[in-house]
Amino acid sequence: MKLGNIYLIPNPLGDNNPFEVLPSNIKSIIEALNYFIVENEKTARHFIKKIAPEKKQSELHFMLIDKHTSDAETIDYLNLCKKGFDIGIMSEAGLPAIADPGAFVVKMAHQLEIRVIPIVGPSSIFLAMMSSGFNGQNFAFNGYLPIDDYERKNQIKLLEKKSGELLQSQIFIETPYRNNKLLDSLTQTLHPDTKLCIAADITLPTEFIKTKSIQQWKKEKPELHKRPAIFIIQK
Amino acid sequence: MKLGNIYLIPNPLGDNNPFEVLPSNIKSIIEALNYFIVENEKTARHFIKKIAPEKKQSELHFMLIDKHTSDAETIDYLNLCKKGFDIGIMSEAGLPAIADPGAFVVKMAHQLEIRVIPIVGPSSIFLAMMSSGFNGQNFAFNGYLPIDDYERKNQIKLLEKKSGELLQSQIFIETPYRNNKLLDSLTQTLHPDTKLCIAADITLPTEFIKTKSIQQWKKEKPELHKRPAIFIIQK
Repeated sequence: MKLGNIYLIPNPLGDNNPFEVLPSNIKSIIEALNYFIVENEKTARHFIKKIAPEKKQSELHFMLIDKHTSDAETIDYLNLCKKGFDIGIMSEAGLPAIADPGAFVVKMAHQLEIRVIPIVGPSSIFLAMMSSGFNGQNFAFNGYLPIDDYERKNQIKLLEKKSGELLQSQIFIETPYRNNKLLDSLTQTLHPDTKLCIAADITLPTEFIKTKSIQQWKKEKPELHKRPAIFIIQK
Repeated sequence: MKLGNIYLIPNPLGDNNPFEVLPSNIKSIIEALNYFIVENEKTARHFIKKIAPEKKQSELHFMLIDKHTSDAETIDYLNLCKKGFDIGIMSEAGLPAIADPGAFVVKMAHQLEIRVIPIVGPSSIFLAMMSSGFNGQNFAFNGYLPIDDYERKNQIKLLEKKSGELLQSQIFIETPYRNNKLLDSLTQTLHPDTKLCIAADITLPTEFIKTKSIQQWKKEKPELHKRPAIFIIQK
């Protein structure tokens, strides 16, 4: 029997029109799928309704992935592919499996020789990186920094050192309600000449993307509270 | 006077229908622009014609960026923004400024306080990363590996070590006609248990994305000659 495929389905980064940030063929892909692995059923249903309003919501089946989902449950989800059904994996915003759940499902899919098909969509990390003006030949995404103040400052220093020694732009993120605090740590810890790109609300009407030296940021800090943001440094 | 903006305009990764991989608002963005910074005028005109066939080709103005363009010339291009005109930056395939020219223009734009606006599109690096099943919380893009066989193998060993020590997926690329040779170096150099994701012809009808151990790849090597590909390893 032919195995089903796994589709990696991106979501918009905010409440804007999905067709501003997703290719129009997303509609036919969603219309053909009935099984979805998602973080939250309610928001997933809402998204599908926006993209494919004719799709019957009663035909949709959702499987949850979050921090409470065990590996065994996740592997079970893939039985559907073994039976020939296609599955879509969606995250709440942006691309699944990057700084978001989904990577483990994809890993298991490869082991089971299930085809993984990525769909183009907005990645705040990548949109920030291309807009930063930093070295696009060499960069690293580091996920979240430690929450503890002392550890965080150490990590910031380490990333600054790396960015200089390896000529590697260092990308990281923070939970949006802690962004202002992170920016304070950055301006307190980094060298005045180190460059910092702050990219907030990417693709949204309030989009803010600027690269400046720490010295310049100190003079005029943007309000980042609860705005999804990407931070990139380069010494 | 209001400054013009810089739009970062993605291109499809091959000769497929652009609207399969670009959001439909790319059309109105292209229609509003008359100035473009590009790698190749001919292919840029071809792309614009596909996206916005009504746009008068005689109104378009192109400025070249390639390895022969000096920094001073690039800075000159931005005079148009100072005069209030918007400029689009395009690469030949994928996103500008990432593993492609354009980052220097963007850097200078930030210094001149010109707004940089990224448009969503296909990034082979990101599509490969999300499809690999590897750690999406920590990864690095390393650009091209050295051409010299000895140096290349050393670099491969170093990346494998890093991927294990830092739990950081290591992404790299090769000029497509050297892909088979690179794959040989990888299977000769990496530990049999190290995982390698090969993602070729992403978003195209011949798309090939698989993650396997080196041991498995040794048994069955795909033909990668002249197929644009992304390689990712994780120990």
